[in-house]
Amino acid sequence: MSSVGQLSSEPRPYKLVSRVFHPEDSIIRVGAVEFGGPRIVVIAGPCAVESRTQVLQSAACVRETGVSVLRGGAYKPRTSPYSFQGLGREGLKILDEARQQLGLMVVTEAVDHESLELVAEWADMVQIGARNMQNFSLLKAVGSTKKPILLKRGLAATIDEWLMAAEYIAAHGNPNIVLCERGIRTYEGKTRNTLDLSAIPVVKQLSHLPIIVDPSHATGHWSWVAPMARAGVAAGADGLIIEVHPNPQEALSDGSQSLTLVHFRELVESLRPVTHAIGRQL
Amino acid sequence: MSSVGQLSSEPRPYKLVSRVFHPEDSIIRVGAVEFGGPRIVVIAGPCAVESRTQVLQSAACVRETGVSVLRGGAYKPRTSPYSFQGLGREGLKILDEARQQLGLMVVTEAVDHESLELVAEWADMVQIGARNMQNFSLLKAVGSTKKPILLKRGLAATIDEWLMAAEYIAAHGNPNIVLCERGIRTYEGKTRNTLDLSAIPVVKQLSHLPIIVDPSHATGHWSWVAPMARAGVAAGADGLIIEVHPNPQEALSDGSQSLTLVHFRELVESLRPVTHAIGRQL
Amino acid sequence: MSSVGQLSSEPRPYKLVSRVFHPEDSIIRVGAVEFGGPRIVVIAGPCAVESRTQVLQSAACVRETGVSVLRGGAYKPRTSPYSFQGLGREGLKILDEARQQLGLMVVTEAVDHESLELVAEWADMVQIGARNMQNFSLLKAVGSTKKPILLKRGLAATIDEWLMAAEYIAAHGNPNIVLCERGIRTYEGKTRNTLDLSAIPVVKQLSHLPIIVDPSHATGHWSWVAPMARAGVAAGADGLIIEVHPNPQEALSDGSQSLTLVHFRELVESLRPVTHAIGRQL
Amino acid sequence: MSSVGQLSSEPRPYKLVSRVFHPEDSIIRVGAVEFGGPRIVVIAGPCAVESRTQVLQSAACVRETGVSVLRGGAYKPRTSPYSFQGLGREGLKILDEARQQLGLMVVTEAVDHESLELVAEWADMVQIGARNMQNFSLLKAVGSTKKPILLKRGLAATIDEWLMAAEYIAAHGNPNIVLCERGIRTYEGKTRNTLDLSAIPVVKQLSHLPIIVDPSHATGHWSWVAPMARAGVAAGADGLIIEVHPNPQEALSDGSQSLTLVHFRELVESLRPVTHAIGRQL
Repeated sequence: MSSVGQLSSEPRPYKLVSRVFHPEDSIIRVGAVEFGGPRIVVIAGPCAVESRTQVLQSAACVRETGVSVLRGGAYKPRTSPYSFQGLGREGLKILDEARQQLGLMVVTEAVDHESLELVAEWADMVQIGARNMQNFSLLKAVGSTKKPILLKRGLAATIDEWLMAAEYIAAHGNPNIVLCERGIRTYEGKTRNTLDLSAIPVVKQLSHLPIIVDPSHATGHWSWVAPMARAGVAAGADGLIIEVHPNPQEALSDGSQSLTLVHFRELVESLRPVTHAIGRQL
Repeated sequence: MSSVGQLSSEPRPYKLVSRVFHPEDSIIRVGAVEFGGPRIVVIAGPCAVESRTQVLQSAACVRETGVSVLRGGAYKPRTSPYSFQGLGREGLKILDEARQQLGLMVVTEAVDHESLELVAEWADMVQIGARNMQNFSLLKAVGSTKKPILLKRGLAATIDEWLMAAEYIAAHGNPNIVLCERGIRTYEGKTRNTLDLSAIPVVKQLSHLPIIVDPSHATGHWSWVAPMARAGVAAGADGLIIEVHPNPQEALSDGSQSLTLVHFRELVESLRPVTHAIGRQL
Repeated sequence: MSSVGQLSSEPRPYKLVSRVFHPEDSIIRVGAVEFGGPRIVVIAGPCAVESRTQVLQSAACVRETGVSVLRGGAYKPRTSPYSFQGLGREGLKILDEARQQLGLMVVTEAVDHESLELVAEWADMVQIGARNMQNFSLLKAVGSTKKPILLKRGLAATIDEWLMAAEYIAAHGNPNIVLCERGIRTYEGKTRNTLDLSAIPVVKQLSHLPIIVDPSHATGHWSWVAPMARAGVAAGADGLIIEVHPNPQEALSDGSQSLTLVHFRELVESLRPVTHAIGRQL
Repeated sequence: MSSVGQLSSEPRPYKLVSRVFHPEDSIIRVGAVEFGGPRIVVIAGPCAVESRTQVLQSAACVRETGVSVLRGGAYKPRTSPYSFQGLGREGLKILDEARQQLGLMVVTEAVDHESLELVAEWADMVQIGARNMQNFSLLKAVGSTKKPILLKRGLAATIDEWLMAAEYIAAHGNPNIVLCERGIRTYEGKTRNTLDLSAIPVVKQLSHLPIIVDPSHATGHWSWVAPMARAGVAAGADGLIIEVHPNPQEALSDGSQSLTLVHFRELVESLRPVTHAIGRQL
């Protein structure tokens, strides 16, 4: 009978990302920004780069609130081939303009070898999205850049598989990895995904890598973003990535989960006492 | 094609528990304790009542830290018929002794009509466990008591089904309901369940009932209880229920998820600044 | 690190229902009907007993097609307290009339100790529904009757938990248990549940108990019932339980998943060659 | 309140793969083999190409049983970077030798643009694996080849997302798509995945594309492959893909789920009566 219950397969020996072999916390630097240190890093910006105006307006607001990393997708993995697929190279240039104008760091997604080359050239941090978490060919490629990587958890990835995806990147030469919990797929339909905040203490125990939380994609609804952002920080996350849009109702993707600039400012203010309560700063 | 996608079935018109029909937050009183008010309520104690000494020792510690509600199971729903099933009526008397000796409120589980009668007589609050969340016969019975009810979310219950279970209780005459998120079943195996903290803001939007969090059953491992307790409070929960055992390694059930008395005291101290950070008290 | 991965908790030593201790298949008899023998048993009838006419009409049709077990709920566990809850004792009498008139065996659900007493008196086989699979108090009670039990798998029960629920019944004195796979809860929303047909060979390997399949509740849509019924038989199931309604569009519950009498006859005809193909009979 | 429940997002208007716009079944040809016609297509072979001997031996056996399509991975997406990653181009040459020697069609996986170019050159059908089902860059690339594509369902993909992935391929110019159900991720741990056979009638209703079943990856255990293969055919699948290895215990990947050559022959024999029972042939 015992053989029946033992499908769990091969042991999962992550090494480079394991806390066993590297007991102290890793600090990953993106310019002057440090992930994994005492400061909570907030990344903010629109889901997709839609226009120069939209990005510059969001970026200015984000900058004002003290945020130093801008997000925005130029290459968008969309469920439907008929949905807006991103501005591509043009989008990267718009992000670059915001960066130069406002002194922001930029993180944006690469979806294949071709876009990776451009993103690595124009951005400060490369995002690997949930749908590509086990695109091993892409993981190997980002492993051979030196760029900091933001590795989102797959839609239904186990924590072991996620750390193994990080191990791919590290094993191919790039130890600069920040993990991002963005909700997992469950039977519950009220929220877009189920934000698995317990992944934070589990990952902290297993690995030395920093971990941040994306409450926007996880909940799928702007009004639930703020409480889950505060909860993420209280659970021990090293940062947050938040969708902000100057006019959510006109967003080309994910409008319902984007905060307005006003709500985003309120959120940042409410985060301050929570970060202090757990002995960290914003 | 549209008919294929519309299996979602009947509308779910909860009324009595809906915020639409009762916009202000409900406050549920158990003695002098108020669930749903500005104070975060902490319930603590062992998973199961095992002996007089174990309960009195846990209760004294819990009392010292300022906790005013004691938990402990006299009737234990166990997966195996060969596991310890609880002390039953004897367990209720032990809990009652702790209550009288220390001035604590007691919450304990009822598993059928017979145990409900005893629990309603001896305890201050009746717990309906996850496995009985859709035991509608039991829900109707607790609906006809006047006792405050702690209604745990089912192992794989949707938020709608959970609120409908509360509606059963309310519709049968008892509006004194406190909800308890205790983790849902997912594919992730590191944690015993996946604590769904986003259920807190969702429930707060849909219902006026108080909601608390059980990080012990959710994570299944004592070292993850404290961060998830802090996260629950930051997410807006009205309280916590925590497993504490004087000697977790000898516990007859769920030892791995129980805090020692020392760790529990540390947790309570760490909760104070978090509750203040979100404008509440402990 | 290893301690982190070992939450799977206590071993699960089912004994009485295990094939290790009882290598040959069990045959469970309900009158002249044998579950677990060479013949595939088909149970059919309406979801709920709604009226004398509806039951007698369904029963007559079912009888004509050679079916010898009638299903129909007199006590209905419904998600909402405002939905039709079943005719209760009156419903049992209607089922009994169909039984006497047509020589059918009757299986119907018990939801608590009180209804169990009546069901055990009036029906030939007692169904324990998915929502009560871990209602251990009820399992103990059916364990002390001698009635054959139809034990449905819980909405999100593991195979181990399901066999442990059967072990409860057996350990309390009743070995007459037939298991019923009725779909599990997953993220997929097209079907009401996800029919886990691989549970059949797994259960057959672990246990000597017969197992049948409920494609009606599993798929939630009448047009998918027939292919899944055929697949269940091909996977090795010992029987099927099918919802049939003289007029599905007027059913008080689960109309969308009920077959008309005409479609049911077609299904039974299509099952014959499949049962022969795997060396069994209908 | 209604806005809260409506996160289901944008409508999903697949067009090219929808049965609404193409009511009759599509037949996809790979050489003389037809997917979607009256004949059930069986694809068989090892999980990974390990050596010339292993492939030629498997291929010869497979050929003998009447199978005309050989599977075998030259590029292997593996959870760990330290696991065997496939023989790459060398593996493709071995598959080609088997093809030429035995007159077999070959299907093998492409994992990125580079391997796609080689696979499209050397093989008859290109597999897109579960982990790449939403690698939209790769989907677009296979859309611009004319090769038949075997599109596996993602680990936790909904049926809608899966059909949308097919729509990507079709919208980029390639209508030659065969879908493959290979099990979805659920909480159940006895089986490697949960084979969702109800996806077959659902997909048949929504789309005109052929669909086959992979019981090897789904169950993860060789002894459950045969019953689930028979069930897949009974549910209406157009074919099967089965792992076969001359010596499963020495396989470099997925040995526990591979059939020996003897067991495979037995399986094929047992499939014949089932296919006839539902009016098809092998």
